[in-house]
Amino acid sequence: MKKLINDPFDFVEEQLDGFVQAHDDLVRRAGRRAVARIDAPIAGKVGVVIGGGSGHLPAFMGYVGKGGADAAPIGNIFASPPAKPIIEATLAANGGAGVLYSYGNYAGDVLNFERAAEKVRAMGISVETVLVTDDLASAPPSDIHNRRGIAGDFFVFKIACAKAESMADLHSVAASTRKANDCTRTMGVGLTSCTVPANGRPTFGLPDDEMEIGLGVHGEPGMRRTRIIPADRVVDELIECILTDYDYVDSDVAILVNGLGATPYEELYVMYRRAAQQLAARNVRVRRKFVGEYVTSLEMAGASITLMKLDSELDALMAMPVRCPMFKL
Amino acid sequence: MKKLINDPFDFVEEQLDGFVQAHDDLVRRAGRRAVARIDAPIAGKVGVVIGGGSGHLPAFMGYVGKGGADAAPIGNIFASPPAKPIIEATLAANGGAGVLYSYGNYAGDVLNFERAAEKVRAMGISVETVLVTDDLASAPPSDIHNRRGIAGDFFVFKIACAKAESMADLHSVAASTRKANDCTRTMGVGLTSCTVPANGRPTFGLPDDEMEIGLGVHGEPGMRRTRIIPADRVVDELIECILTDYDYVDSDVAILVNGLGATPYEELYVMYRRAAQQLAARNVRVRRKFVGEYVTSLEMAGASITLMKLDSELDALMAMPVRCPMFKL
Repeated sequence: MKKLINDPFDFVEEQLDGFVQAHDDLVRRAGRRAVARIDAPIAGKVGVVIGGGSGHLPAFMGYVGKGGADAAPIGNIFASPPAKPIIEATLAANGGAGVLYSYGNYAGDVLNFERAAEKVRAMGISVETVLVTDDLASAPPSDIHNRRGIAGDFFVFKIACAKAESMADLHSVAASTRKANDCTRTMGVGLTSCTVPANGRPTFGLPDDEMEIGLGVHGEPGMRRTRIIPADRVVDELIECILTDYDYVDSDVAILVNGLGATPYEELYVMYRRAAQQLAARNVRVRRKFVGEYVTSLEMAGASITLMKLDSELDALMAMPVRCPMFKL
Repeated sequence: MKKLINDPFDFVEEQLDGFVQAHDDLVRRAGRRAVARIDAPIAGKVGVVIGGGSGHLPAFMGYVGKGGADAAPIGNIFASPPAKPIIEATLAANGGAGVLYSYGNYAGDVLNFERAAEKVRAMGISVETVLVTDDLASAPPSDIHNRRGIAGDFFVFKIACAKAESMADLHSVAASTRKANDCTRTMGVGLTSCTVPANGRPTFGLPDDEMEIGLGVHGEPGMRRTRIIPADRVVDELIECILTDYDYVDSDVAILVNGLGATPYEELYVMYRRAAQQLAARNVRVRRKFVGEYVTSLEMAGASITLMKLDSELDALMAMPVRCPMFKL
């Protein structure tokens, strides 16, 4: 295992310590395993709590900050945070106007966030939840609510945070966030596995000459394996899957070309170039563009493409300024 | 070769196309192989031209933009741009107050930038040059001017761009940039090689259980190879080398913990944490902190630590706002 780490069982704590120290102008510790924006809670503002396992930076704590999320509980690598840090994050985020939970749809996360919600509701805090379900490879359209959340997290969180920042009430924040999730789709490709430090060996195997279309961000099996094909053909397939699943034609969209960790930015721009060509040809109008590492899987090589349909509300919310440790706009 | 690319010989053009399209609010093409900020040239402002080979994003074109560089010529992967795009970048950057060239000290870059400088001087444009020489592993102190430029590029460019943005004259911009370079030192570690697409095979070999201290960003040999050691011991060694080479004790510094490409952000934060501990213990005062991928080497795994000593001028210049495609402050 070639990694710049110490004891694998200290990895999560140590990255968290370093993160909070490096960004002490924007975030603070809100518990042993929770991070909050430095000025949270903000009286009268809906608190936004995002979270999930570690190993996905900038998700999740990289998006806590001004114009970003109010707090994030921190799980072990690729594992849901327990209820306790979720409760700590909720208390740090609660400015009296209720708290929105938004996170990827994974069984462990749902269990623990629901447990936390029950406890904080008993303390008199209103909680609403919007699950992110953008990974179209993870379940067919007939089973859409069982889809997982992957890079689309970034768009859905951005909308939730911007809407809360505009001082909307909890119901409205949840409604806009749900709308964002409903019109967001992601399709990815994996080239190599990653290694969870505490496991010490690659999460899955993938032959040297193969790639996997539709791979999940923790190595969940995708839709098909193929010999390595050129980037343009990969992009064409990802775009085709996305446009077949949701009708973006004649719409404004935001696009995210997301790297999983080890894929160079240069390759992401090659992919963006092809995606822009294909979307223009299909009369999908790209208004907001993001290329980079937004939701990663440790050192996995691969990438994904996400589209979110923009109405005037979502477009304005996407453009609102943000000042987070790992994302500024 | 597991990469998301098309024909390896189209790679540089395609990444450049994608980059300029993705960031057309901030940059524009200034030639077949040159990028300029959208509002360049700015009358009366010193133009800053940075550059070098491709494969190092965000360096170099990721730092072109408002408060950033005026233009960047684009070389092939790990290869200097020829004189022609350097001249195109210079003409795009020239607002009548002269142009500063700043780039890493590599023989090919020096040759081509000098060639370009000669031509544009013949057109009546004043040019000054500041070479970046932060890589302390690349030559001993007795041969300091032959050191190469690596992640310290980011600090030196930031100073050059901020000073130019403040409308200082060419002589002053060059003087501040030179001062920044003189008090900047970097020491890195490599864990894996990368593969230049047009070569198709790893640039160098490194056994599965070894790392290389002092490795250059194109795979230039470092100071020593060692079995994999814990991150804290790696950081201790990097910091020790830096503090032995330059006296940062009792000073304010900016620090950059830079990932080479495949190393997860989580690991960089583990390293930052240890670096902060060590510097505090040595009475080096960390004022400005950067953790992330700033100067990469395609999908190489590894990281480096850079320190720059801050006087009041450099501190103020480091803090000036920037709005570039791959860096915002």
